Amino acid sequence: MRIRNVKNKYEILKKSMYVIKDPLKYKDNWWKLFNNNNPIHLEIGCGKCGFLVESAKRNPNINFIGIEKNASVITYGLKKLKEDLSNLYILNIDALKIDNIFDKEISKIYLNFSDPWPKKRHEKRRLTSEIYLKKYDKVLKNNGFIVQKTDNTNLFQYSLINYSKFGYKIVDISLDLSFKDEKTNIKTEYEEKFVNKGNKIYMVIVCK
Amino acid sequence: MRIRNVKNKYEILKKSMYVIKDPLKYKDNWWKLFNNNNPIHLEIGCGKCGFLVESAKRNPNINFIGIEKNASVITYGLKKLKEDLSNLYILNIDALKIDNIFDKEISKIYLNFSDPWPKKRHEKRRLTSEIYLKKYDKVLKNNGFIVQKTDNTNLFQYSLINYSKFGYKIVDISLDLSFKDEKTNIKTEYEEKFVNKGNKIYMVIVCK
Repeated sequence: MRIRNVKNKYEILKKSMYVIKDPLKYKDNWWKLFNNNNPIHLEIGCGKCGFLVESAKRNPNINFIGIEKNASVITYGLKKLKEDLSNLYILNIDALKIDNIFDKEISKIYLNFSDPWPKKRHEKRRLTSEIYLKKYDKVLKNNGFIVQKTDNTNLFQYSLINYSKFGYKIVDISLDLSFKDEKTNIKTEYEEKFVNKGNKIYMVIVCK
Repeated sequence: MRIRNVKNKYEILKKSMYVIKDPLKYKDNWWKLFNNNNPIHLEIGCGKCGFLVESAKRNPNINFIGIEKNASVITYGLKKLKEDLSNLYILNIDALKIDNIFDKEISKIYLNFSDPWPKKRHEKRRLTSEIYLKKYDKVLKNNGFIVQKTDNTNLFQYSLINYSKFGYKIVDISLDLSFKDEKTNIKTEYEEKFVNKGNKIYMVIVCK
């Protein structure tokens, strides 16, 4: 996603109650931040936070954390947060750091329309490469889920093979998410755009 | 596939050197029939035998066996066998019987455009239902492969979930086989028709 640089982005993030400034200190203690034992769902690359905010609104008994390394993008997300939501936080960090921040306390990871990094030499950067799948093992609870959506065929094929390779099983899969109930599928900003273009959206849920 | 009934079908099958009349007696001894130790590939539901015959021609060092319960359809296949092929046989049996006929001697099973049996009450009849996957375990060598092609999205989704459920791993997958090299992909009669219609062909290779 190409996004215009927001000059005072760090100022905006610093002032927001939704952005956690020192995530390292919550490792193994995220439940304390939320002050409850509800399951925690993590979106990696939450972008403009459309999915994250809507998910948090619809599911008050689930805690949502979004990770996004682009600070400018997060400022767009914060504009969506007019009302108070006690079950949502955003971290402005690189996804590579997640295993320093969470310790087997996440019930579900969402990978929504991640960068496909099509070149072979960039394979490691794909969010379903070995390097990331090994991090997810450290972050996910036992029997935790990964839910992936993408419209990129090559990334989806690659991901399915890698899930298999690293011991994940396919629990559910859709090769055309438009058939799924509109009410249950929360669309990201990307998804909205792609669906309007007529692209097929792939979705898979995996579990170890 | 709706096929016209061929009146003298059993006569034709009886006379053909390619049709094995008493397959039960070869269990655990199929290599003797071929008189070599080359790998044996099995197509379940070989229909008009287009894929089977072309595969056998292109791969003289692999033995091919096709199973088809519709005797009339096989007669169409036999018309394709003008030349002598020593690495191909056809069995006019129901796929449910395969575990009586083979004992861990098959290296690869092909499921090409199998009947999707879309109704839930017919699930058992799908060639990737639990009942069949358990039979394939008895028939396939250790580390044997299943190669499935279909244009049916629901059957493909169902199959991927079931492979996972019963311990198979995805080794390769294509959500649009038209991208694959024409030379390596041998098309079935169905596939030819579907591709010409513009349908996408799915392909997956799984292994335990």
